[in-house]
Amino acid sequence: MTEQALRVDEAELRGLLDGRWAHVREQARDVLQGELFAPVHGLSTEEHRERTLTQLRALAKTDLPAYGFPEAVGGRDDVGASVVGFEMLVNDLSLMVKMGVQWGLFGGAIRALGTERHHAEYLPDVMSVELPGCFAMTETGHGSDVQNLRTTATYDPDAEEFVVHTPDEAARKDYIGNAARDGRMAVVFAQLYTGGESQGVHALMVPIRDGRDRPLPGVHIGDCGVKAGLPGVDNGRLSFDHVRVPRANLLNRYGDVAPDGTYSSPIESKNRRFFTMLGTLVRGRISVAGGAGSATKAALAIAVRYSDTRRQFTRPGADGEPEREVRVLDYLAQQRKLLPALARTYGLHFAQEELVVRLHELSRSAGPDEHAQRELESRAAGLKAVATWHATQTIQTCREACGGAGYLAENRLPQLRADSDIFTTFEGDNTVLMQQVTKALLTHFQDSFGDLDQLGLVRFVAGKVFETVIERTAAIPLIDRLVAAAPGRGEETSLYNRGWQLELLEDREKHITEGLAGRLRRARKDGRDAFEVFNGAQDHVLHAARAHMDRVVLEAFVAGIDRCGDTSTAKLLNRVCDLFVLSVVEEDRAWFLEHERLSTARAKAVTQAVNDLCRGLRPYAVQLVNAFGLRDEWLAAPIALGAEHARQGDPVPGRD
Amino acid sequence: MTEQALRVDEAELRGLLDGRWAHVREQARDVLQGELFAPVHGLSTEEHRERTLTQLRALAKTDLPAYGFPEAVGGRDDVGASVVGFEMLVNDLSLMVKMGVQWGLFGGAIRALGTERHHAEYLPDVMSVELPGCFAMTETGHGSDVQNLRTTATYDPDAEEFVVHTPDEAARKDYIGNAARDGRMAVVFAQLYTGGESQGVHALMVPIRDGRDRPLPGVHIGDCGVKAGLPGVDNGRLSFDHVRVPRANLLNRYGDVAPDGTYSSPIESKNRRFFTMLGTLVRGRISVAGGAGSATKAALAIAVRYSDTRRQFTRPGADGEPEREVRVLDYLAQQRKLLPALARTYGLHFAQEELVVRLHELSRSAGPDEHAQRELESRAAGLKAVATWHATQTIQTCREACGGAGYLAENRLPQLRADSDIFTTFEGDNTVLMQQVTKALLTHFQDSFGDLDQLGLVRFVAGKVFETVIERTAAIPLIDRLVAAAPGRGEETSLYNRGWQLELLEDREKHITEGLAGRLRRARKDGRDAFEVFNGAQDHVLHAARAHMDRVVLEAFVAGIDRCGDTSTAKLLNRVCDLFVLSVVEEDRAWFLEHERLSTARAKAVTQAVNDLCRGLRPYAVQLVNAFGLRDEWLAAPIALGAEHARQGDPVPGRD
Repeated sequence: MTEQALRVDEAELRGLLDGRWAHVREQARDVLQGELFAPVHGLSTEEHRERTLTQLRALAKTDLPAYGFPEAVGGRDDVGASVVGFEMLVNDLSLMVKMGVQWGLFGGAIRALGTERHHAEYLPDVMSVELPGCFAMTETGHGSDVQNLRTTATYDPDAEEFVVHTPDEAARKDYIGNAARDGRMAVVFAQLYTGGESQGVHALMVPIRDGRDRPLPGVHIGDCGVKAGLPGVDNGRLSFDHVRVPRANLLNRYGDVAPDGTYSSPIESKNRRFFTMLGTLVRGRISVAGGAGSATKAALAIAVRYSDTRRQFTRPGADGEPEREVRVLDYLAQQRKLLPALARTYGLHFAQEELVVRLHELSRSAGPDEHAQRELESRAAGLKAVATWHATQTIQTCREACGGAGYLAENRLPQLRADSDIFTTFEGDNTVLMQQVTKALLTHFQDSFGDLDQLGLVRFVAGKVFETVIERTAAIPLIDRLVAAAPGRGEETSLYNRGWQLELLEDREKHITEGLAGRLRRARKDGRDAFEVFNGAQDHVLHAARAHMDRVVLEAFVAGIDRCGDTSTAKLLNRVCDLFVLSVVEEDRAWFLEHERLSTARAKAVTQAVNDLCRGLRPYAVQLVNAFGLRDEWLAAPIALGAEHARQGDPVPGRD
Repeated sequence: MTEQALRVDEAELRGLLDGRWAHVREQARDVLQGELFAPVHGLSTEEHRERTLTQLRALAKTDLPAYGFPEAVGGRDDVGASVVGFEMLVNDLSLMVKMGVQWGLFGGAIRALGTERHHAEYLPDVMSVELPGCFAMTETGHGSDVQNLRTTATYDPDAEEFVVHTPDEAARKDYIGNAARDGRMAVVFAQLYTGGESQGVHALMVPIRDGRDRPLPGVHIGDCGVKAGLPGVDNGRLSFDHVRVPRANLLNRYGDVAPDGTYSSPIESKNRRFFTMLGTLVRGRISVAGGAGSATKAALAIAVRYSDTRRQFTRPGADGEPEREVRVLDYLAQQRKLLPALARTYGLHFAQEELVVRLHELSRSAGPDEHAQRELESRAAGLKAVATWHATQTIQTCREACGGAGYLAENRLPQLRADSDIFTTFEGDNTVLMQQVTKALLTHFQDSFGDLDQLGLVRFVAGKVFETVIERTAAIPLIDRLVAAAPGRGEETSLYNRGWQLELLEDREKHITEGLAGRLRRARKDGRDAFEVFNGAQDHVLHAARAHMDRVVLEAFVAGIDRCGDTSTAKLLNRVCDLFVLSVVEEDRAWFLEHERLSTARAKAVTQAVNDLCRGLRPYAVQLVNAFGLRDEWLAAPIALGAEHARQGDPVPGRD
């Protein structure tokens, strides 16, 4: 790698990262100022909840909530903007999540699962927070297995009402945001029964509190109490004791009950109906992936700025030179902690942008494109998983990289860490999501998520000659060109050849997925139990999803750089991309060796290249984190904002 | 691996883990009961601090503090017991750390660095907490580089006093436990000046508050405020503005100043004197390693018990069988999360026990054994680092493995996670400690820590033909026998052959360390800058330390199993040990492939063996965590104590 200094066009870089919804980011930067939106710590639970609600009501007075809602009710119907707006609320993740509950989940479910009359009746009050509400899906006994949740909604044709009921503790709605304190209404997911027959999971509007904040008759509300983080979100528990709601309260876009109890639906298959309903909620997952990205960026901005100034240990004096303590970011160990994580954060940013664009386009397309919808859901599941795991890991690394200072609440890392921790669990447990990604790969996105159970999947795979089709995700002609130009698997190819890198990750994904298909097929032939087969291959399944997501992120990264309008800046981004992909290869180099994709010499060269790239990128680290465009007052950490610089007599770079 | 069920002798297993200081563990189990010692959450900072102090005062009335102090002042002079007692305080890590500050660091420094008169004057009040105190070493600008801290203590022969002074903000004492609220006295580490000459870092007793909790004149006290965790510990900041203390306040075991200002010391070399003083504080690091182990065990006990009962997703019905949801610990992915971590926790437990025994024996040995002391310090540094990293990672994994329930404060994982997070930083930053381990390996423990700077080290290594001497650490004849019986590197050897495993890890350590020595030697010959050379090899340096510690832990594990009195239980432990060592190999199998220690087929077989071992150990997982002997009321998590079991109609295993 050349050590020649690069001139970085900071405006170009910032603009590239801001992307298609740059105006929404600017709007958020404009709105989220001042004491009302400043990060705080050390409040009591009640104080933090009150503050978060106040912030939410203040946001309601801006344009931000309108993006997610239809024009018919005063919204601006810009799904992409609504996701980007969500991810900007990094000043306090409690606010981010509270907003996500109110407008994304509660409002989003009414929008997606309800019909015009529900929109007209509820959405204006949802937007204004006149009607704070809950998204009551998860049950104590059923976090991941939504299809088998146990709350019932039984239609009573005499009264033309549904009876919503919690049969046992396992069916209690749990971890529900807005439930413990503020919610007045809940979208409740329940097994719908009419005429003695089950029609599967449906959603209904169920009032839970009266105008004076008292639980309504038959509604039992508990408080989840103190959590690891997100102190401003009032998570609670809901149980229903034969609570009656009018027939009209059924969100009836995908299934309706006539006054006499007759059930009808535009989708015949119960299974397909369920997954179609669930699919409409994909925006939530994409939002969480974006939110995780923002938290990661904030942590990296703090740790990199601090490490750039913080000094520790003197460098043994070379002949006659004055000794000075070494900046900690000059240590390879510190670079190794922060810079590959920074590179991956860039990659995930571009993948997120691409996913939001897809979601947005799909929301505007005329006819339903089932394949595209399946692919979107799969991508959303995978990106949510890898982005949130990356957040958990990176923020922790940043904490450690900042030493004792990183442990102090004033430096924000503890709250970022604690708040974002649950992101790996909510909106779908990551381990479950990654398995869905692999299932989609095995079925070529032909089926909805989980539309096939394990047995069905094994049968499906066994039934055909399996060949992976790598579906390119971004900038297809460019990537095809790069791959075509790659000089093959030979030793001579530079590790920095992008075509070679793309092919390497593509080949890994293909090989792992095909190997898995073969394994399932053989086991099927041997007549082995489908559960045992699938369970015994679970590590293989998760690895396939990882490999897939690495490739997806790399392609998005390449496409992102291609949009960069400044050559020198693009060069820098190419180095960042090299660091991302070579870290991925380094991490999994055992696999590449085991499958003879890398020689031992070349594997060692990858490690050396990661070291070289770390050293080469170190001078640009502060510019790279500043380009995220996070306001100083959101970072709030004194160690990143001049306290350490002042102590050392150094200038503070890139203050906004 | 055989699938034959093993009968586990639970009493034998528990006794083996309780080890030499079983009576201290029993004592702690007896003392730490009832409401006073129950885990709590959601208190305000002030309430938690008050509670922790009250608990500490209650502990002071028991025998526990006496272990760490000399008989002359009413102590019981049993260092091993004092470390084991510390690690048992897992009911609240704030109490653990507060105790560590008061009796371990503050009291320990007076004991180790002071002389009889200091012992007599202070230690009784330290033990009774009549005199709460601080260990004021770390400075804002110098966390890791203690040798260059900047607080000064200048002797004034006219007044026969020392003037303690903080010259600038970098020299401010920071993160000091007991400083913000309770401390009355501090052991202050400062550069000692007398007659205009610097004598290096020494420790002095400096009063900081009067009897009415007011800071004394010239002492400025700040509060570090809210932290990620440890809310009950009042960390603060101390600055001194020409504060005068009597000459007698110098802790003068290793360096004294006569009334006229003449300096004297039993150790001539300033450098050696410094490292000797620091070496006496090794107990703190060993204690932290033990505390990290306890926190890890508690988290695993919670997560394993919950996963054993929690069910999610139905198993596709085999012909005619009734469907039932699958216990999450039956999933390979969940086993992979928890069981290798459990196996490593066992290994670290035995390594910790061994280290405590060494510390204890060394504290009683007549003459000083420099080599043994260096080895102890190196081992303590390494074990502290790997045990605390393991804690951070494992507790996080446990949180995720428990899903939403793991995020609730009532289930204790959040507080365990947040409290133990700083363990990777305090008592020595892990990354710095691991480098010290490697330096010791390179110098064969001939030198004190850091007694050689980077330049000196490179010179040292360059000056001799380097050959690693693997110093066995435990049960030497047994391990020699096992290694001798190993059938060599051939493919035919079973992966479960203990001799082969021992040799594999030994060989890796040797190869990495020798490779590093060669690299430093070559660079020296080329006349390259010592800092650049050492920095460029930092990942290599850290890898050497990891490899060393893996081998040390494995040897301790083998020795521990050898002490087990029941054959069937020992068999189980041997499987746990297999899982530990094969996980280690799996994690680093790229290295083994790159260096042709494993063929690709054998590397793949290692992954399969880890899967097999996970499945094989799954039925014993609950017994294995119950053997830690942590009281249910310390775990406190409803999900681990019957809430989930009751909901599912399952019995609760192993309640105490």
